Amino acid sequence: MTTKILKGSAVTEAMNDVLANKVSRLKQRGVEPCLMILRMGGSADDAAYEKGAVKRAEKLGIKTVCTQLPQDAPQEQVEKILRTANADSSIHGVLIMRPLPLHIDDDAVRNMLDPRKDVDGITDISMAGVYSGTNRGFSPCTAEACIEILDHFGIKIEGKKACIIGRSMVVGRPAAMMLMRRNATVAVCHTRTGDPAAVAAQADILVVAAGKTGAVDSSFMNSGQTVIDVGIGLDADGNLCGDVASSAADCPAAITPVPGGVGTVTTGMLMKHVVEAASLQNR
Amino acid sequence: MTTKILKGSAVTEAMNDVLANKVSRLKQRGVEPCLMILRMGGSADDAAYEKGAVKRAEKLGIKTVCTQLPQDAPQEQVEKILRTANADSSIHGVLIMRPLPLHIDDDAVRNMLDPRKDVDGITDISMAGVYSGTNRGFSPCTAEACIEILDHFGIKIEGKKACIIGRSMVVGRPAAMMLMRRNATVAVCHTRTGDPAAVAAQADILVVAAGKTGAVDSSFMNSGQTVIDVGIGLDADGNLCGDVASSAADCPAAITPVPGGVGTVTTGMLMKHVVEAASLQNR
Repeated sequence: MTTKILKGSAVTEAMNDVLANKVSRLKQRGVEPCLMILRMGGSADDAAYEKGAVKRAEKLGIKTVCTQLPQDAPQEQVEKILRTANADSSIHGVLIMRPLPLHIDDDAVRNMLDPRKDVDGITDISMAGVYSGTNRGFSPCTAEACIEILDHFGIKIEGKKACIIGRSMVVGRPAAMMLMRRNATVAVCHTRTGDPAAVAAQADILVVAAGKTGAVDSSFMNSGQTVIDVGIGLDADGNLCGDVASSAADCPAAITPVPGGVGTVTTGMLMKHVVEAASLQNR
Repeated sequence: MTTKILKGSAVTEAMNDVLANKVSRLKQRGVEPCLMILRMGGSADDAAYEKGAVKRAEKLGIKTVCTQLPQDAPQEQVEKILRTANADSSIHGVLIMRPLPLHIDDDAVRNMLDPRKDVDGITDISMAGVYSGTNRGFSPCTAEACIEILDHFGIKIEGKKACIIGRSMVVGRPAAMMLMRRNATVAVCHTRTGDPAAVAAQADILVVAAGKTGAVDSSFMNSGQTVIDVGIGLDADGNLCGDVASSAADCPAAITPVPGGVGTVTTGMLMKHVVEAASLQNR
């Protein structure tokens, strides 16, 4: 049996067709969907993500406004930018690159954002929506990308067993909630789980967001399993790799590659949210 | 091996000692902790819960204000009462009996409540706190009662496997989040889980909140397991019973009885939250 590679590009291509159409209809109504990206300091990862997002947005006809603050910019400056963005009806979504520098009060900044513009699901209101399974704000893009990939490739979620490795607010917890909402039976493993491989090996769907290169090997898998590898790191040769050990890549029934898997769909999800936000704000 | 009965009264007695002490210290400072209970219609269950809460509060020196509205009272009337309660510094906590009648907008009512007075964790802000594992507002009393029972009887949570039967916002989800925060590996089963018994039987801690009498039998258990039965129903003879079938009550290592288990600790948790709220609002 060969392992099916769940390429992110196939998912985003399908998403792009729908999105480009929605964007052109919004523009006919005089609405240009616009994403503001707020970034502090000069992290290369943040810059790379921004670059990717801007490029994708351009392709889809979505406007981007990139605001970069110095690493040591004061809290007040960040708050002022968000207040302005909240009040600016030409900005429909705001992405704040996190983690923010340590002198910034993350809770205060997160919750200043208008939940209707919270396209990456970081406000308390958005979180409550994901947690309660109601449509209140947006979900975190990475977690939703996992679901989008499963749906695109026709992998059934309903009634299946899912295991999530990692309990972060960005991936692990929201992915668990979203899979549960879709009627999967979900188990969440984390750094304090005694035998994560034993739990994971029982799952039909394994979402790996351990944040550790090579954290998951074939002992976590079974031959009928679909693996979504959310990890992003560098291997010994300096190449991009996920949290799934390369030796295990041909064990499950299907797996997302890294690079070219979840990451690209995450950016697509962000674009989808911006377009949705623009629609909702201009009904 | 005999099954240990985890009596709620042992937990509440220990809680009461601490609480009575805190109440008397608050009163020395001129603060009388006060809980407002808002109830719509004449449900016997709601009335019984209110009666129990009032009695417990009296015993601890906590004041209660009971407001009962007719079943068909309009939304505006509910909102007015909550606005008044939010503004009244002599009321520290508000318990809204739910489900509310169908003509009431539950989301609107929930989120009108000042999160600092949200002693049963129903606002979006409180939910975000439970979901993210941060101390933002209070947790739902029933879910926290499960944790309190485990802690009181010295049942280790850290590193253990927990299974929750039920995914409600009142018990299942918050219990899952709270156990995960305490480093348990948590699986959540629900009505769409194919084989909940197989998942549950692997757990060290089984929280049963299925909302269905007799839903859980011995096939869900193992001899080392601790079972927290959150269910409350009536058996064929009209006696109070939990979600665990009576035939299974001697299978696990320890189990909470119904009645006399989680319910009584839930009321204790409510009192604890009111006292905490009074303290936090009078620092």
